[in-house]
Amino acid sequence: MAYVTIRDVAQRSGTSVSTVSRALNNRGRISRETKALVEKTAHELGYIPDSRAQAMRSTRTRLVGLLVPDIRNPYFADLAYAIQDTLFDAGYCTSIGTSSEDSVKQDAYIMNMLSQHIDGAIIVPRGGKSKALKALVDISVPMVFVDRHVNDMPEVPVVDSDPSEGLLKALTDLHSRGFRKVGYISGPILDSPTLQEREYAFRSAGRALFGEDNLFVESTSFGHVSCLSVIRKMRGSGVNAFIFGYSQDAVQAISALGYQGLAIGKDISLISFDDLEMFRLMTPNISVISQQVHVIGSLGAQLFLDIVERGRKAGSQRVETVYIPRGSVGEAR
Amino acid sequence: MAYVTIRDVAQRSGTSVSTVSRALNNRGRISRETKALVEKTAHELGYIPDSRAQAMRSTRTRLVGLLVPDIRNPYFADLAYAIQDTLFDAGYCTSIGTSSEDSVKQDAYIMNMLSQHIDGAIIVPRGGKSKALKALVDISVPMVFVDRHVNDMPEVPVVDSDPSEGLLKALTDLHSRGFRKVGYISGPILDSPTLQEREYAFRSAGRALFGEDNLFVESTSFGHVSCLSVIRKMRGSGVNAFIFGYSQDAVQAISALGYQGLAIGKDISLISFDDLEMFRLMTPNISVISQQVHVIGSLGAQLFLDIVERGRKAGSQRVETVYIPRGSVGEAR
Repeated sequence: MAYVTIRDVAQRSGTSVSTVSRALNNRGRISRETKALVEKTAHELGYIPDSRAQAMRSTRTRLVGLLVPDIRNPYFADLAYAIQDTLFDAGYCTSIGTSSEDSVKQDAYIMNMLSQHIDGAIIVPRGGKSKALKALVDISVPMVFVDRHVNDMPEVPVVDSDPSEGLLKALTDLHSRGFRKVGYISGPILDSPTLQEREYAFRSAGRALFGEDNLFVESTSFGHVSCLSVIRKMRGSGVNAFIFGYSQDAVQAISALGYQGLAIGKDISLISFDDLEMFRLMTPNISVISQQVHVIGSLGAQLFLDIVERGRKAGSQRVETVYIPRGSVGEAR
Repeated sequence: MAYVTIRDVAQRSGTSVSTVSRALNNRGRISRETKALVEKTAHELGYIPDSRAQAMRSTRTRLVGLLVPDIRNPYFADLAYAIQDTLFDAGYCTSIGTSSEDSVKQDAYIMNMLSQHIDGAIIVPRGGKSKALKALVDISVPMVFVDRHVNDMPEVPVVDSDPSEGLLKALTDLHSRGFRKVGYISGPILDSPTLQEREYAFRSAGRALFGEDNLFVESTSFGHVSCLSVIRKMRGSGVNAFIFGYSQDAVQAISALGYQGLAIGKDISLISFDDLEMFRLMTPNISVISQQVHVIGSLGAQLFLDIVERGRKAGSQRVETVYIPRGSVGEAR
């Protein structure tokens, strides 16, 4: 393939490269006739201005690197959609990469994007302060973290959700329906400050409402601990109401419960983080603590644009979680 | 922010730009000591070779534009994941855009990507031969269509699925379970040659097994026709087995059926195109005609790489659909 170059336009119009440049960039002295001829020729040949060449002059590419753990996880698909939509409206292309929850792959992707000289990056970080994340900070690439933060990188603004409000409302609902014990399955918290914060928020709200002894907390790890065995164990202690800090665990557990003949919303009550479409489609619908992912995504993109376009030093922002009660929560027996 | 330039490296190492260039590109005459000094300095300063500059010399950006209708549709998320994964392994970055099933947005995204001088594009096209699609062909941008084709663009290779085999197996299963009438809800077929082909394949396989008079076919349009009313109407004609040509319709219908007190797999039997994760999580699991989306994605990316890297003129390829029977299909009463 061959993109039409400014040289092709010059040749075809019988002018020089510098004349074409003056004509197309409205710069310097040029007669009206020559300008019209060059423009007509450029149009006929299908000349597309090279944003890379412009970028090298202006040091701007209008390309943003977006890194999410897995685009197949509907929560991150929603997040990516909201970010891309906001950036597109502002004239930016988004290059979406996936880290597969793997710090090595995350860093490889970031280095690849850096060699494209991206204007900046919006990242759902995985794990701690890695070499590539450090490189981004060192060369002052505009950067925003969304959904998660990295413990020792306070210099990067974060847009994430505050779990407290949603958890408090969810726990209050369970309490008012007569439940006196609650199970919390906190997900793979090991590398995730976000999941750690959720567990902490569960414990503090739960303690006040149910008392320390009536809270049952277990973590899982990516695919290695079966949620079903955790649920079984807690049911053995008389727990029939469960909150999932990590929606992929809830998805797994609901599927497994179907085979156990346990009726959700009757035998067992469930609430999960993340308002996934599939939770709205299941029978009964699953009660959720929504992170308002569209708000996080568009706020994150806005914050990013503030840094890139207006050079503003942005502060972190938190989005309230919202509890949405549905059929998966019944009355205590 | 400021990327470290070759000029910065020259200044700091006390050499010239051309010396740095020779040292870092292993080209031309240069003493071992100077080369070592330049390399050390480049490393210390965190110099990242500019792939755009290299690209302008080599006319390669290693950036691929990928356009899907909606990343939030899990079928397209799976497809994008498979494509991106294959391209990443081959050293390419993928810029994912979404057309929202809107030809105008599709064209805007393509023109934006063209100004980044992408190495090529992988597209799930929407509608007919548009201005931007034509522009891609005119300047010979390497291009592959995946999942769908465009009727009057035979010059672009397509990787999509062949609906016949999966439909035949699905219909044979329904017939063997005693069903004598079948409903087919074909989705928003108006602008979609793919959905039109599926309906055609349903009719030809169905005719042979059930007879023309026992086939009931209705199309929907994006969100405007309620699947539930279509199902109600067909049930009025004694139809209790349904095949969905468009998985988003099935998702909608299953959710609505839950509220009607109709038991899937007992009162009503369902099969849908696309092996979505949520179909595997519902109770009962939904029988599907799988398009093997991972195969389509990785084959599409491979075909693309063949064109870009080996200059091969690629031919279109079709992937067999596979019928996967599950609990949503019961016995006819």
